[in-house]
Amino acid sequence: MSKNKGNEKRVESIADMNVDFAQWYTDVVRKAEMAEYSKTGGCIIFRPYGFAIWELIRKHLDEKLAATGHENLYMPMLIPEHMLQMEKDHIEGFAPEVAWVTHGGTEELTERFCIRPTSEVLFCAHYADTVQSYRDLPKLYNQWCNVMRWEKTTRPFLRTREFLWQEGHTAHATAEESLAEALLILDIYSNLTEDKLAIPVIKGQKTEREKFAGALATYTFESLMHDGKALQTGTTHDFGDKFAKVFGIQYLDKNNQLQYAHQSSWGISTRMIGAIIMVHGDNNGLVLPPAIAPIQVVIIPVAAHKPGVIEKAEELQARLKDFRVKVDKSDHSPGWKFAEYEMKGVPIRLEIGPRDIESNQCILARRDTGEKITVSLDNLEEEVAKLLDSIRDNMYEKAAKRLQENTYQAQSMDELKNILDTTPGFVKAMWCGADACEEKIKNEATATSRCMPFEQEQVGKKCFVCGESADKMVIWGRAY
Amino acid sequence: MSKNKGNEKRVESIADMNVDFAQWYTDVVRKAEMAEYSKTGGCIIFRPYGFAIWELIRKHLDEKLAATGHENLYMPMLIPEHMLQMEKDHIEGFAPEVAWVTHGGTEELTERFCIRPTSEVLFCAHYADTVQSYRDLPKLYNQWCNVMRWEKTTRPFLRTREFLWQEGHTAHATAEESLAEALLILDIYSNLTEDKLAIPVIKGQKTEREKFAGALATYTFESLMHDGKALQTGTTHDFGDKFAKVFGIQYLDKNNQLQYAHQSSWGISTRMIGAIIMVHGDNNGLVLPPAIAPIQVVIIPVAAHKPGVIEKAEELQARLKDFRVKVDKSDHSPGWKFAEYEMKGVPIRLEIGPRDIESNQCILARRDTGEKITVSLDNLEEEVAKLLDSIRDNMYEKAAKRLQENTYQAQSMDELKNILDTTPGFVKAMWCGADACEEKIKNEATATSRCMPFEQEQVGKKCFVCGESADKMVIWGRAY
Repeated sequence: MSKNKGNEKRVESIADMNVDFAQWYTDVVRKAEMAEYSKTGGCIIFRPYGFAIWELIRKHLDEKLAATGHENLYMPMLIPEHMLQMEKDHIEGFAPEVAWVTHGGTEELTERFCIRPTSEVLFCAHYADTVQSYRDLPKLYNQWCNVMRWEKTTRPFLRTREFLWQEGHTAHATAEESLAEALLILDIYSNLTEDKLAIPVIKGQKTEREKFAGALATYTFESLMHDGKALQTGTTHDFGDKFAKVFGIQYLDKNNQLQYAHQSSWGISTRMIGAIIMVHGDNNGLVLPPAIAPIQVVIIPVAAHKPGVIEKAEELQARLKDFRVKVDKSDHSPGWKFAEYEMKGVPIRLEIGPRDIESNQCILARRDTGEKITVSLDNLEEEVAKLLDSIRDNMYEKAAKRLQENTYQAQSMDELKNILDTTPGFVKAMWCGADACEEKIKNEATATSRCMPFEQEQVGKKCFVCGESADKMVIWGRAY
Repeated sequence: MSKNKGNEKRVESIADMNVDFAQWYTDVVRKAEMAEYSKTGGCIIFRPYGFAIWELIRKHLDEKLAATGHENLYMPMLIPEHMLQMEKDHIEGFAPEVAWVTHGGTEELTERFCIRPTSEVLFCAHYADTVQSYRDLPKLYNQWCNVMRWEKTTRPFLRTREFLWQEGHTAHATAEESLAEALLILDIYSNLTEDKLAIPVIKGQKTEREKFAGALATYTFESLMHDGKALQTGTTHDFGDKFAKVFGIQYLDKNNQLQYAHQSSWGISTRMIGAIIMVHGDNNGLVLPPAIAPIQVVIIPVAAHKPGVIEKAEELQARLKDFRVKVDKSDHSPGWKFAEYEMKGVPIRLEIGPRDIESNQCILARRDTGEKITVSLDNLEEEVAKLLDSIRDNMYEKAAKRLQENTYQAQSMDELKNILDTTPGFVKAMWCGADACEEKIKNEATATSRCMPFEQEQVGKKCFVCGESADKMVIWGRAY
């Protein structure tokens, strides 16, 4: 061990997040080995450490979806061109950014296929085939898959041509049910985000301008990144019977009357990983909420060459079997290892050396605060469990405090611009509901409406753009 | 209930498997609601019941791969054309059957991308970037994903343009290690197939002609379908340093010498589901091995309108929480339900009615044999566990007996042809090793070498084609 100590380089430093947030983000993504650029332009390699986070998010959400009666299935990745064109708003929304398959082997195809940017039309066609009676409803289907949107500018996790997501598509008997589904899923998403990712969110409805192509209403939960920009991490849509009328999804009700089905769709994607980085990360790298940390506890043997140290480290790992634990037995120096697992955001570092073993104790260092505590080995399992809970709570509270401190009110366009230029964050302001005002905000302040929060406040009486009377409080911001 | 009894149609009948096996197969796939044809030619919709089987296979295999140190990640689905062309044999094997993306949005691309038919080249490029030192090895990476091969004729699960699979790609320091990996994974695959899917397999090596494009050696496990045809359900490949030399995957060994890495790759796909259908199915539909049955026990309340019956059914479901249990409370008749869950291959049907409740018992009907037993409710959990084990064992033994009974020996081409034309199955015959003989067999008997089994037998001394001396016993057959 000591042989390496002198000449071994510590983990390379990363950009200062307060100086160059974008560079800091890229540095963390790459140095923590979450993702790497690929030879396929605009697409990333989800490296094992980054992908494991996605697998944990998937596991948590999948359990919730199963518990609420949803079923997973899998639809083709290619959509025939004529199908994408069936719903007018939908094709207008997606056609400019899809990838087209024109050849199979050496032959040119008679009809092009696009790689799914989203799968509404495929689910609709399937429902039209399989829904006949009220007994066939509701259909609560979900798929975990890859999708593709031919973006011009990309950034790992936040915007890539190919990304991973789940897309739920449901069909119901009534308008009330499809609306209830869109709201139920919004709750499942936001609970997951707050509980497992320790990220506070604001729930609300999108404006007409920002809603999903083809939807009746879009619901969203928005969160605030460390640099004061907003990130929309997931949305749910109520389609009413709009798609059902286009695709002919009809069922016989209990009175033998033909009715149109009502639908919802909803998705969260690997963007979530970007949110985790940008909400919790610091100048030492990633900070992971315990529920989705691929390694929750890393055990670092100190003076590992001394007899009994490695054995003790393995014994502790075995005792901590209810957690995701790694013992780093490599021949890197302890200093290198400390920096490495800080960069990777591992919630707890457990240090164990000969003197600790002698006194039947070990050191637990928490990643979120840097605090170190010495605990008796007798009740290690409980101490670790308690500490992980405390880390999650502290991370959430810290993020909630930042959200509160960076949420402002504006009464005029100048005020809005001034806030966003100097102390970026969320800005609450009253809006009359006119698209012209929303467009003006976009053009003059390069800000968008994030949502009309469910929890409304009266922060004024007039639209801050046109001065007409206004009863909608909207949250505005600059977004990823 | 009784109101519906008269006019309700039972599950529609399916083709007789002994008369028209292909039609029987399609009928089972569709009537058991495993898959449906899609509007995307050559691609299927994996319906929830079929997809749940895949999810269970994935869960079992993923646990084994994690336990042996493998990590999941995710690579882009598109491969730039120039990369696919880097390894000569590889491009020759795949170019005729890939789908090409030529346009992104409205713009024609300067370089085409193919949708991955397999991802060797992407993993190789990533290894070339990330492997520098012996410390970086081995890399034991795996991904679960969709792939696409532009097939002319397709059949649900067995051959579709898009299918789901896992592809493992590993890099090792030495030739011994990459070979050992290919053989380790072959064991993991075949144990999974025998243990969880109750399908007996024969393990061996592929001939030069049948090996994977670009591999040094391909290993396979083959199984026999109900109609006497072979199905290759998974393969593992040892690449040696062939790809490493093309892609420049080199590392510094402990003596500071530059060495080429050695690689393996391996995959199983949704074809597995086709094997389950064709090995275990019968004229009443699907028969599922318990380990991958989405529903292991279906509880059918008899005289469900009588007080206490539904409640009792739900109570039993709660008690059987260690199993995947469904209570069918729908207003279909018991007769409809019996046929429905037989078609879906549910291992155990549990019938519970007022008289059963009175005598503290229920009826368990096993799908594999049709046998019904009456058991006391006192030890229901143990009875169900025992019965599921017994069903798996019986299914395996039945399939093993059929495999044995349909494995023949041939000393001449005429004998081979005669066997395959009259009593199809596996045919053991000695082969000299010449590709010309293998080609002759393909042309004259429309049969292929399935594998050179690891367990060799001396079934003759001369090649059954050319009469030259032969020391390889090969299994021949007609395959899906």
